[in-house]
Parts: sequence; C-alpha cells; structure tokens
Amino acid sequence: MASHPNATDTIVALATPQGVSALAIIRLSGKDAIAVTDRVFKGKPLAQQPSHTVHLGTLEREGKSIDEVLVTVFKEPNSFTCENSVEISCHGSPVIIREILKLLVHNGARLAEPGEFTKRAFLNGRFDLAQAEAVADLIHAETDNARQAALNQMRGGFSNEIRHLREELIHFASLIELELDFGEEDVEFAKREDLKRLVTKIQSYLSHLISSFNQGNVIKNGIPTVIAGKPNAGKSTLLNALLNEERAIVSDIPGTTRDVIEDEMILDGIAFRFMDTAGLRHTEDTIEAIGVSRTRESMKKASLILYVFDLAHTSWKEIEREEGELKVLGIPYIKVGNKVDQAPASILKDLENQGFILISAATHHNLPALKDAILHRFKIKEVKQGDVLVTNIRHFQKLTETRSSLDRVLEGLHTGITGDFLAMDIRQALHHLGEITGEITSEDLLSNIFAKFCIGK
Amino acid sequence: MASHPNATDTIVALATPQGVSALAIIRLSGKDAIAVTDRVFKGKPLAQQPSHTVHLGTLEREGKSIDEVLVTVFKEPNSFTCENSVEISCHGSPVIIREILKLLVHNGARLAEPGEFTKRAFLNGRFDLAQAEAVADLIHAETDNARQAALNQMRGGFSNEIRHLREELIHFASLIELELDFGEEDVEFAKREDLKRLVTKIQSYLSHLISSFNQGNVIKNGIPTVIAGKPNAGKSTLLNALLNEERAIVSDIPGTTRDVIEDEMILDGIAFRFMDTAGLRHTEDTIEAIGVSRTRESMKKASLILYVFDLAHTSWKEIEREEGELKVLGIPYIKVGNKVDQAPASILKDLENQGFILISAATHHNLPALKDAILHRFKIKEVKQGDVLVTNIRHFQKLTETRSSLDRVLEGLHTGITGDFLAMDIRQALHHLGEITGEITSEDLLSNIFAKFCIGK
Repeated sequence: MASHPNATDTIVALATPQGVSALAIIRLSGKDAIAVTDRVFKGKPLAQQPSHTVHLGTLEREGKSIDEVLVTVFKEPNSFTCENSVEISCHGSPVIIREILKLLVHNGARLAEPGEFTKRAFLNGRFDLAQAEAVADLIHAETDNARQAALNQMRGGFSNEIRHLREELIHFASLIELELDFGEEDVEFAKREDLKRLVTKIQSYLSHLISSFNQGNVIKNGIPTVIAGKPNAGKSTLLNALLNEERAIVSDIPGTTRDVIEDEMILDGIAFRFMDTAGLRHTEDTIEAIGVSRTRESMKKASLILYVFDLAHTSWKEIEREEGELKVLGIPYIKVGNKVDQAPASILKDLENQGFILISAATHHNLPALKDAILHRFKIKEVKQGDVLVTNIRHFQKLTETRSSLDRVLEGLHTGITGDFLAMDIRQALHHLGEITGEITSEDLLSNIFAKFCIGK
Repeated sequence: MASHPNATDTIVALATPQGVSALAIIRLSGKDAIAVTDRVFKGKPLAQQPSHTVHLGTLEREGKSIDEVLVTVFKEPNSFTCENSVEISCHGSPVIIREILKLLVHNGARLAEPGEFTKRAFLNGRFDLAQAEAVADLIHAETDNARQAALNQMRGGFSNEIRHLREELIHFASLIELELDFGEEDVEFAKREDLKRLVTKIQSYLSHLISSFNQGNVIKNGIPTVIAGKPNAGKSTLLNALLNEERAIVSDIPGTTRDVIEDEMILDGIAFRFMDTAGLRHTEDTIEAIGVSRTRESMKKASLILYVFDLAHTSWKEIEREEGELKVLGIPYIKVGNKVDQAPASILKDLENQGFILISAATHHNLPALKDAILHRFKIKEVKQGDVLVTNIRHFQKLTETRSSLDRVLEGLHTGITGDFLAMDIRQALHHLGEITGEITSEDLLSNIFAKFCIGK
C-alpha cells in the first residue's frame, strides 16, 4: 500500500463545527502528537499519562494563557488513527480555536488535510476503504435510514459482501489457473457448465448489490425537488407551508424570491431537498433574469418537480400550455393547483380527474394529500441493522465494471475461448472489487476520496 | 444560597455547535449521569471506571446501534459542575445527535436549560458569579483582547478586586459599628477625617474600575457601525471592499440590498460590526420601505456611521444637505467620498479640507486611509494577562450603585449624621458588591444571567 508522503507529520484540526458553543474539540495525530501538546500544556506531563485519560490544564504561549482545557491522551495503536493522538477540549470560541491552532502549528504540528485522520486510519489498517468512506457518510447522514446504512457499512457489512464475492471469484480463478498450469496437456479441470453456473451465481449476487443502489442513492442523497411555476403562483408560500416555517421572503410582489434556497423536508425517511426558485417568466429585469436562469438549471437537476398552478388567475388554455412545457423536461412532476379557494368551483372536478392536487398553500388546505402524492412516487424500506445497501456511486460503478468483466467471462465460456483470456477478465473483475475495499489503490484515488471529507475527520 | 428546584436531575445537551463535523460532544451532568449512560452504552460498565477515563463502545436503543462513541467519565466532585458527568464523543451528524439526545432523555436524563451546566458549577461552589459570567464571555469573545479579558475574569482577577473592595468596606463598617455598640457613651472610635480618607480611597478605586468599562465594553461588544448613504452611492461595494469578499449582492440597480446584513471587521483588536443597509431614500416599493425603515433603526443603534457620498452624481448643495441630515443624528460619523475617480478634480481639495476620506470602493483606492480614520476614533490598549477590566454591563451598574451608596456615606460624614445611618448605606454598598460575585443572589437574577448562555454550557 502506498505510504502517505507526510505520514510521519503530526497533524492538527478542529473536529467540531465552526461556531460559538460550550466546547470545541481540537485533535492531533502523529508520532509526536503528545510531545507537541506537552510543549504548550501546563499541567501534568502528558507523555507520562496512560492512554485514554483526561487532564485539566492551561494552554500557554510564551507564558500567557490562551485557555483552560481538558486534554485526552490516546497512545498508539489505541486511537482512531492507530497513532499517538490528543484531543483538546477548549471553550467553543472561534478566537480561542484559532489561537490554539496557531500555537500547535508553531510548536511542530501542521494543519490536517480534509479526511487526513480517516486516511491515516485506513493506511494504518484500522479499516478498509469502503468502511472509511462510510465514516463520511455517517457524518453526512440526513435521515435515520441514511445513518443506519452508513453505520452498517462502517461496521463492515458491505465489505464482508465484497470479500465474499472476491472469495468466490478467487475460487473460480483457481480452477481456471490450474487448467493454465496444465495447459499444454489440454486438461479441463473444471467442466465449462460448472464454471458457467458459478459465474452466473456470482453475477446474480452482483446484480442484487447493484440494484440496491436505487434505494441506497435515495437514502444517502435524498430527492432533489424543485418547486416551479409562474410568478406569484405561490411557490414560496408552498415551500414555507411544507417546511412549516418561514425560510423565504414571502411577498405579494411578483419576482421577490431571487435566490435558489435549498432546504429539505424529511418524509417517511426520505430527504426531499427543495430548491425554492424565482418565478419562471421572461423578464427584462437583470436580477430577475439571473434568478430565472438559475431556476432552469435547478429544474434540470431535479428528480421531482412540484409545479404550482395559480388557479385563481390561470385559464384552462394557460394551464394546458404550462403543462405542455413541463412535459418536455422529461422529469417526474406533480401538478399542484394552488389557491383552490379562489378557483371557479366548476373546474375542480376536472382538475382532479387530470391528476391535479388541489391545495391552498396559504391556509395549508389539503397539504397532506400533496405529501401523500410525493411519497407515492418514492418508496423505501426501513434500513435495518445489518442490511447491506450500495449507497456510494463509486462502489456502484466498480460493481458495474466487475459485472461487465464477468459478462465477458460468460461470453468467453460460451464461445469457448482459452483459459488465459478467461483469467485476464477474472483478474480485471478482482481488480475492480479490490478498488472498492482498497486492496488496490492509488494516491490519486485516495486523494479524491478523502478530499471530500470534512477537515478534522 | 438558593438551591435549584431541579438540582438533582440529570441534564443532557449538545455542547458543540449544530452542524456536520468529524465529532460532536454530548454532555450529561447529575447524580445519575453515569448510571443513565450505562443503561444505553455497550462497552465496559462506566460506573466501575475511574474518573477522567475514556471508553470506546456503542450506544444502543433496543438492541439497535445508533453510533460508535467514545465516552469520558468524570466523577463528582472532579468535574466542571462538581457532579457526576459524562461526555459522549459521537460522529458529528445532526441525525446521530438527535437520536442520542432522544435515547438519553428516554433513559432518565432531561434536556438542559441554557447555561444550566455553568449554573450548577456556580451553585456547587466551583466559582463565583462573575467568574461564571466570564465563561459565557470567553465563548463569545470575538477578538483576542476580548478572549484575554474574559479569561482574566474567569480566573478570578475581577472577583479578587471585588473581594478586596468588600474587605475595605467591611473594615470601614467595623469601625462604624464599634461606635454604634458604644453609641450611648458617645465615643468616637474612628476620627471622622480618617473615615473620609478611607471612603475616598475606596471611591477612587471604584471609579478606576467603573471607568475601565469604556474600554471593556468596546473590547467585549465591538463597535456597531452602519454604512449609510443614498441609493447607489456604493455602500455594498464598500462593505465588500472592507470585508474583502462578497457578502452582499452588489448590483448596478438601485435598491437591491434588501436585508440588513451583519458582518464584522477586526481592526487592531476591535470588532467593527458592520450593518450593511438598504439605500436611504423614500420609496413606494413596499419591500424597499421595510429596508429603509430598518436602516433608520440600525443607524440609531450605531456607535459609528460611515456615510457614503456618491461624488460622481452629487452636487455640492446635495452634499451639504446630506451632511446636515447626518449631523442631526448626533452619532459619530465619517464622511466617505466614493467614486473619487469620477469626481471633478477641482472639488477634491475642498472635500479633503472638510474631512472627507476620498476613496473608490470599486478599486479599493485609499481604503487604508479610511481604516486609519476609523481607528482614529476608537483606541484600546492590548489586554494583558492579569489586567482587570469591567466588561459586563451588570457589573458596571452594580459598581455604579455601590459608588452612589458611598457618595451618601461621604455626604453623611460631611453633614455629621449618626453612625446607624452611615452603617445602612455601607450595608447597601456591600449588598451591591455581593450581587456581582453572587454572595447575594436570587433565582430571578440567576435565571436572567444563565438564560443568555448557550445550551450545553
């Protein structure tokens, strides 16, 4: 495994969010983490304290106190990174955090890259790559399902499946390679039919994992949802009604929602990530124009559009034309008839028959029906302890590539190609699986993965 | 000292900021804090572990894991609150934090009130009230001076001064009260001149502390600063230039900065808290109107106004009229002549002579001169370790009340009133000082103080 170029540095970072709070945690890791801290800590000498103990003292810079802190010592290999580590619990002031970071850097630590603690944990063999990735997923989990899926993956559930797949493939490869060893004698150790059966079994297992990504992706990333419609149709009011609190400036004046505001609603364990958008209309106003083009961009990224029609001010003809424009986008949409209380009673039945959900965003009338309609489009099962789900697009891609390699193996078995070609495709499949768990890796791949982590993780 | 009505409850709260991060800390305090945690922690039994030790394990709800955590045990009286305490270090996901809080509440803890941990620390005698208040100041410190002032206060510097004042007063009171004991014999144990000298000495000491509040208040709270001026004068551009990054939507279209955006710039250890404001003009537009009235409100709260004149589009007459309006407010202001590159060269000398700072916000031309002009108005000395400064308005008020009581004592000595009247005023002075450090307190006062703390502190 490639060693990190600066793997012996002592790294330091804030591990808790930026902001004002009771406490903040600054963590250090590296061979000298405890020694660096000892240089600035007035209290017991930390190097002489047992692992997993906590000590009260003061951090000092040139005899001047910065803060009173609690310091926890972790001695290698009994830490998250398997290295000497220190956690400093200080008062949660941005000024104090900055001063302490400066002090530690001045005394021999360097600021950690994003994900560098977890990367070290991986490089030091604490867990495999898929488990390391789950640490980030766990932190970013926005629903209890996403949390459970990430925790299952962090605890090795998914890694075990991959290991199991690899074992099956290695078994298959061993049969083929045995043949290659005896190649010139034209011996067939494995019946071609038995081999086909084995690959087919592995493929079905792979497909099962790959297909779980549909659910896994929704669980991990939620459903990007756009509320669209003409100016003043009630989009902001609807967003506020759904979120049940004011998160956008709602006004009677058309075109006042100028920025795309992202927010989300959790329905039945799914995060619907709403993008409230400026009104969809042609405009001469330059700021409006920016808003409108952003809306179009948002709509293209959406997995669901809630399209709001203003029933009070829209003719049948206009409704038809708007729905025509909507269909062109090719994205699932729900037709929301707003201001139902101001609409002519005669048309309501027809609208319902055409699938409109009739609501009043202002009075919250019929919102539960709208929520039901949203959920009707997206169903997920509750994630249980131990469930294995593919939630990571990188894993999804590697599994798909593995399946392609095995497709070629099956095809080769069918056309009767020689064992060495079969072996090549199998090695390819093993390579892809190895990239998931990190048996096969590169500095580029690792940088790419860990760069997406938070600082301090 | 009044005991808290629920002082035996086990309280729980998130101690780190809300948000996504590597770690979050959830803390518990109370007689049963360790027992409550033991109910949900799968790992070593915490009750049997020594104080100040850290343990890896899993938090579980009905056999289902919520997260893998590190738990630190603190045993009474060796904790911040002097009670049994637990700190749970979990993954920094809002979902995990919520689930853990729910779990602990379900198992016998209750959510802590703001400041309840520090309140318990105070009630259990860990420190006095002024020191407890400094904990909050330390967390909210926005400059290194504010941090140092709060740390000095937390470590008892200010409390020692108050104790010293009390001792002096008690010495004075004892002289008076000795007289009262022998009152009928008409003995004067203390020469009136000596008493006057002693009170005058205490008064001068008090005045020294009281006058430090000028600096202390600026250090703790910063300078609320408003950037004002007619629409399109370049207020947002100036704010952005000063903050050196885009924090407001800057546009060529007048009236596009609709909300008061607070941000701050640290100059020479002082936090200038800028309120960027909507253009000052009369408007029919309802949203604009809200913005303009907010600007007037902001200006009244400001300690400094940077008034931006658009030199490219403003006549001498208009400049004079605007400055006239500005003077009426009675708040210190700096006249900023913006768009100096588009102004007629002939008027620049005159403007400078009249105290205008001539800049271009767009090109950042002459911004250092503006910063100098700002700093010229507000000077503070660096706060050193051990310096005593009054930064808290409550302390300022109590010190002022103490001085008033002593004024009456001096007056009484002058007019020759009897010892029992003198003793009453001295008791009053001692009462006010006692309210600062919490020897004299009430549930109302404590609630009022601790309600302003963060949750989790």
